[in-house]
Amino acid sequence: MTDVEQLTAAGNEISASFMAAKKRSDKTLAALKANPSQFTMLTGDRPTGRLHLGHYFGSILERVQMQERGVHTNLIIADYQVITDRDTTAHIQDNVLNMVLDYLAAGIDPNKTMIYTHSAVPAENQLLLPFLSLITEAELHRNPTVKSEMEASGHALTGLLLTYPVHQACDILFCKANVVPIGKDNLPHVELTRTIARRFNERYSPKHEIFPEPSAILSEAPEIPGLDGRKMSKSYGNSIQLGASAEETAKLIKKSPTDSERMITFDPIARPQVSALLTTAGLVTGRKPEEIAEEIGNGGSGTLKQYVTEQVNEFLAPHRERRAELAKDMDSVRDILEEGNRKANEIAEKTLDEVRSAMGMVY
Amino acid sequence: MTDVEQLTAAGNEISASFMAAKKRSDKTLAALKANPSQFTMLTGDRPTGRLHLGHYFGSILERVQMQERGVHTNLIIADYQVITDRDTTAHIQDNVLNMVLDYLAAGIDPNKTMIYTHSAVPAENQLLLPFLSLITEAELHRNPTVKSEMEASGHALTGLLLTYPVHQACDILFCKANVVPIGKDNLPHVELTRTIARRFNERYSPKHEIFPEPSAILSEAPEIPGLDGRKMSKSYGNSIQLGASAEETAKLIKKSPTDSERMITFDPIARPQVSALLTTAGLVTGRKPEEIAEEIGNGGSGTLKQYVTEQVNEFLAPHRERRAELAKDMDSVRDILEEGNRKANEIAEKTLDEVRSAMGMVY
Repeated sequence: MTDVEQLTAAGNEISASFMAAKKRSDKTLAALKANPSQFTMLTGDRPTGRLHLGHYFGSILERVQMQERGVHTNLIIADYQVITDRDTTAHIQDNVLNMVLDYLAAGIDPNKTMIYTHSAVPAENQLLLPFLSLITEAELHRNPTVKSEMEASGHALTGLLLTYPVHQACDILFCKANVVPIGKDNLPHVELTRTIARRFNERYSPKHEIFPEPSAILSEAPEIPGLDGRKMSKSYGNSIQLGASAEETAKLIKKSPTDSERMITFDPIARPQVSALLTTAGLVTGRKPEEIAEEIGNGGSGTLKQYVTEQVNEFLAPHRERRAELAKDMDSVRDILEEGNRKANEIAEKTLDEVRSAMGMVY
Repeated sequence: MTDVEQLTAAGNEISASFMAAKKRSDKTLAALKANPSQFTMLTGDRPTGRLHLGHYFGSILERVQMQERGVHTNLIIADYQVITDRDTTAHIQDNVLNMVLDYLAAGIDPNKTMIYTHSAVPAENQLLLPFLSLITEAELHRNPTVKSEMEASGHALTGLLLTYPVHQACDILFCKANVVPIGKDNLPHVELTRTIARRFNERYSPKHEIFPEPSAILSEAPEIPGLDGRKMSKSYGNSIQLGASAEETAKLIKKSPTDSERMITFDPIARPQVSALLTTAGLVTGRKPEEIAEEIGNGGSGTLKQYVTEQVNEFLAPHRERRAELAKDMDSVRDILEEGNRKANEIAEKTLDEVRSAMGMVY
């Protein structure tokens, strides 16, 4: 094969495996809609900063829907994942508590959803040891997401970044989640989790399955660009935080870059910045970006920005109100996390006991 | 440099670093003898089989001495290390309980020494996560002991084998051990532990040291060959188990290979098998192998084997008697392990709390 043929073949293979994953995902979603109570879901966030509109439309909305459907919903605040690619845990307490605030304000109900942090659940973390024995170093290195995260971080590959997909398997399997909503970057992690579950069962408990092989649900949400048209990222300062004030939001949108053309059109390729503003407005209003562009027409970027600001702030007003209300009583917020951690420990200890029994580590 | 010069330079570098380590070890040992109560020691075994004479002279004797000197002595039964390079935990319960029996029979006093298993101490295992973040993947791969263990096992490099030196750092640091008695193969692991302690302190607690940088004490014990002159190994069946019966021991020695020369001489290079028998007899009697060889002279290997059998069985008789006595009440043996695990959990939870505080993971 020539280089081009090889690349094409590789590309076909990737898209074929993605299409297969999408097909499985659709099937899982249909089964989940039919029998929500038979599903346990695990998902979560890295508390490296505040949650923004990208998180809201990309994952939080879906989680609330799952919760309301009656799926057993579990939310991990992955505090140890903060240090996979950085040398500091600065502001972590603040980030974690603000994350809980945003979850609650967005409709996550702690009576239905378990919210917990990695660092508080030793029995879950212990699963890392038997699970690491089920995976070869070559398999760890083969994970494309780890590689690209390492490159994006500009940081040397730490032992924790290399092994974090196995840690993610601990998150998923300790509560026996059988469904994991993800973006396509996380497909390799779910595959690894399935491998770990399968190998553990085969090796240590062939007659009685201890871990389910979880299915991925690929997010339906569109990729939401940052205000400047680049990937939405805390470090680019191009994201609208859920908990920011209306004034902060107005300022951020005001200083977002546009182009010199007065006529507003929706063209993500040629006009990424203007189009990002239109996409944002579209999401919060439920309208089509093209329609908004037409409406603004010759009004220019000033009019567009004013519209985006109004709509975003209107959309987020109830969230922010609930958030402010909740923030008045941070002790209750801490209690919610503590209760989630308590429950997570209870579940983790039960699972760890099963694991120890299956492995004969009972003395 | 030519290849030979390069190899010589590398060899010199290794022996220079070994000599430096030996010098530090001697200094640590002197300090420990002067002020034993200021030292906390961590060491242990992988429960892959029964303890044998090699363990007795290579490490157990030294541990009992440390305990009696007043060093805070901690013994880890590293059950998760069993699966670094194998796919089964078969017989692990039996191996662990027999290990405790041999410790106790050899003079380990559970009132002075904490005996515990990896699998029972989640808070210790959790330290693996922050510690993995302090080490790069390149540093994990640079460990020569991991490489040689992987090659010896004939098994693919698992994630657990790759990372077990970091897990060993958890063993050492959770109880804040400042001294670790080791063979020279484990020097890289202690170096890694020192690196982890230093980096953790610098990064998360620069003003108040949380972890000591432990010192290695290099074992003074001679390398004890197996009965057939090869490396003593469970899989070669060439080791005398502490807990075997006198008859089993006699049988094992009887079938051990020798050479056709009648005259018994001590010559480990030219006559490894006969010399291994002489070394064994020398250890259990406290005599010089050369002296024993001279005494037997023309008596041939039959006489030699008879002498070795008698002396080994005589030496091990009190150990075996205590062992048999203890084995009559396995519930008490289990209680001792349970109490060790309870203490280890108490210590681990305290250390983990300090780690969480230092990292700001308190919510």
